[in-house]
Amino acid sequence: MTSEDLNIQFHIKQPDQALRAALQAKIDNLTKPKGSLGRLESLALQIGLIQQTLTPELRNPQNILFAGDHGIAEEGVSVAPREVTWQQVCHFTHPQGTGGVNFLCRQHGFKLKVVDAGVDYDLPKDRGIIDFKIRRGTSNFLYGAAMSEAEMERCLECGARVVEQCAAKGSNVLSFGEMGIGNTSPSSVWMSYFTGIPIEKCIGAGSGLDSAGIRHKCDVLKRAMENYSGSGSAADIIRWFGGFEMVMAVGAMLKAAEMGIIIMVDGFIMTSCMLAASQLYPAVKDYAIFGHCGDESGHKLMIEAMEAKPLLNLGLRLGEGTGAICAYPIVQSAVNMINQMDTFQGADITKYF
Amino acid sequence: MTSEDLNIQFHIKQPDQALRAALQAKIDNLTKPKGSLGRLESLALQIGLIQQTLTPELRNPQNILFAGDHGIAEEGVSVAPREVTWQQVCHFTHPQGTGGVNFLCRQHGFKLKVVDAGVDYDLPKDRGIIDFKIRRGTSNFLYGAAMSEAEMERCLECGARVVEQCAAKGSNVLSFGEMGIGNTSPSSVWMSYFTGIPIEKCIGAGSGLDSAGIRHKCDVLKRAMENYSGSGSAADIIRWFGGFEMVMAVGAMLKAAEMGIIIMVDGFIMTSCMLAASQLYPAVKDYAIFGHCGDESGHKLMIEAMEAKPLLNLGLRLGEGTGAICAYPIVQSAVNMINQMDTFQGADITKYF
Repeated sequence: MTSEDLNIQFHIKQPDQALRAALQAKIDNLTKPKGSLGRLESLALQIGLIQQTLTPELRNPQNILFAGDHGIAEEGVSVAPREVTWQQVCHFTHPQGTGGVNFLCRQHGFKLKVVDAGVDYDLPKDRGIIDFKIRRGTSNFLYGAAMSEAEMERCLECGARVVEQCAAKGSNVLSFGEMGIGNTSPSSVWMSYFTGIPIEKCIGAGSGLDSAGIRHKCDVLKRAMENYSGSGSAADIIRWFGGFEMVMAVGAMLKAAEMGIIIMVDGFIMTSCMLAASQLYPAVKDYAIFGHCGDESGHKLMIEAMEAKPLLNLGLRLGEGTGAICAYPIVQSAVNMINQMDTFQGADITKYF
Repeated sequence: MTSEDLNIQFHIKQPDQALRAALQAKIDNLTKPKGSLGRLESLALQIGLIQQTLTPELRNPQNILFAGDHGIAEEGVSVAPREVTWQQVCHFTHPQGTGGVNFLCRQHGFKLKVVDAGVDYDLPKDRGIIDFKIRRGTSNFLYGAAMSEAEMERCLECGARVVEQCAAKGSNVLSFGEMGIGNTSPSSVWMSYFTGIPIEKCIGAGSGLDSAGIRHKCDVLKRAMENYSGSGSAADIIRWFGGFEMVMAVGAMLKAAEMGIIIMVDGFIMTSCMLAASQLYPAVKDYAIFGHCGDESGHKLMIEAMEAKPLLNLGLRLGEGTGAICAYPIVQSAVNMINQMDTFQGADITKYF
C-alpha cells in the first residue's frame, strides 16, 4: 500500500512564494535593527505566506486532542496503566477543567476538542467528546499490524472531518495533542523508519520508565520491527505501527495544510505524526509551527532530522497539546509585530542600516 | 568605594526555604507525570518561595524602560547614531504605541513606564516620561569615570523610587528594559570584570556592527579597561563604566528584590545589570526570572557564568524589555498550573508513580 493507494487523498500545495519579497521588505522596515526580533520575524514571514497576506491574523484557535489505546501496551512498554487514558479523557472534559491542557487552553483562548479515536472504555456521552472510536485500542503490533487498511483510512477521514468542523467555526490556527498510554512506542518506531535513526536512539522514558524499563521497551520495539512483514511504504508503516489517535492526527494535519490552516505541533508524539504526514505529503511541513522540543530522548534527533526549529525548550513531556499551546503567544507576537509596529519613516526615526 | 560605602543600602534576604517541601509536594501531586511540566514546575516553586505561598499570583505587571545616552558612543562603538535614543523614547511613548516594546506590552497586559535616566535631548513633557535625567549622557569612560559617586547613588535611588511607585500600584512582577545607543559597550565591560571572561569574548555586534566594527569596539573597550584607575570594587566598576539607565536598572532590581517582587530579566544589557546587582547583593538573583538568551555574542557566556536558565531563545536582540515580556506567558502558565490543576486524588486518576 502506498499513499497513492489510499482512497482518501489530500491536495496540499506549497504556499505561493510570490509574496515573500514584499513580506520581507515590510518586516525589515519596522522600527528595529534588521533581524533583531529573530524568530518573530521568520514566523511572521511563514504565516504571511500561509495566509497570502501582508496583514495576517489568527482566529479562533482550537486544540484538538485525539485519544486512543494501544495493543503494544500489553508488553509493558509504559509505566502508566491503560486505564489512565480514559481517566484523563474524562478529566480533560470535566466541567471544572483541571487537567494540564485545560489551564493552558483557558490562558491562551483555545477551545478544547477531545476526540475518542479508540479509547478502551465507554466514555460519558455528556462531555462533548467526539465519538470517532475505531475500536477499543489497536492490535499489538509485536504480532501483526496495529490496524487494517480500512481502519487507517477511516482514521485519516475522521481527522480531516474534525478539522473541517473547526474551519467551519472560523479557526485558522489549530494545535494537535494526544492522550494514549503507550503511544511513545509507535512514535519511536515511526521515527526510526522515517529518519533511518536506529530504534535505540528513538526511545525515551515516556511518562517515567527507569533504565531497565527503557531497555525492555527497546527490546520489544526491536522485535516488533523484525517481525514487520508489510510492504515498507510510508503508508504501510503508519498503518502497521500507528495508534488510532496518531493516524487521526496525521489526517487532521494533512487536511489543515490543504485548507491553509496553521498547524501548531506539540511534543514527541505529535512531531512523529507531522513526520509521518510529511512522508505522505512533504508540503505539509510548510504549514507547521513546532511549539516545543521536550526531554523525551529522541525528540531532539527527530527535530533535527526534520530541520525543524521548535519555539520552546522548557523540558515539558506531558503531551495533550501543552507544548504547542505554551508556544502560541509567540506566534501571536509575530502577528502583532507585523501588524502593529510602525516603519522608520512613519515614526520619524533615523534609519541607520 | 565598596557597596558598604554607598549611602543607599538595600535589605535583600534569600526567600525563606521552609515552604519548599510543601510547594514541591503540591506540584508533584498534580495530574501529570512527576516533572513532566518541566520549567513550569521549577518556576512555580521559585515564585511560591518568593511570595511565600502555595497559591502565588501575578498582579499588575509593568515594564520599566530606562533610557540614557553614553559618552563612549563618541568612539564609534555603535552603528546607530546617538539621536536614535531620544527618537525611540518618543516613539515608545507616542499615543499610538507602535514601537517594538509597545505591541508586546499590549499583548501581555504590561503597563509601560519610560524613565529618562540621561537622554541627550529635551524630551516632551506630555508623554508621561518620568524625568530622572542625571545629565545628558555619561562621560566617555575611555578617559575617566562615566559618572561621579553622587550620580551613581542618585541612579540607584531613582531606580528604587520607580519600583516603589509600581509597588504602590499593586505590581508584584516587573520587567526591566532599556534604550541607550552604545549600551552594549558598558555591558560588555561589566561582564568582563564580573565574570573574568576576557573582553573580546564579551563583545558582539550590538545593533548591527560588521566585523571591522566589532574589532574597533573591542580595541576601544580594551583601552578603556587599561586606563581604569578606580578602586576595583564592584561598586566602583559599576560607576566607572555604567550608563545612567543601567545603574538605575540595578537600583530598581535591588529594590524589587527587597520588596519581594519578581524580576523579569531581559536581554544582554539587563542581564549585565542583574550581574552587577548580584555583585552588590547576591540574593537578588533569587528573585530573577531570565526571560531570554539572545544572539549577542557573550550573552550565552554571561548566562552560563550566572548559572541562569533563560526561558526563551528566539534570537531577539532588541532590548526595551521585549525578551522578558515575550517570556511572561510562561510565568503565567506556571502560576496557573499550581493554582488550577487538580491532584490525582481529586481527579480520580490512578497514581502510577
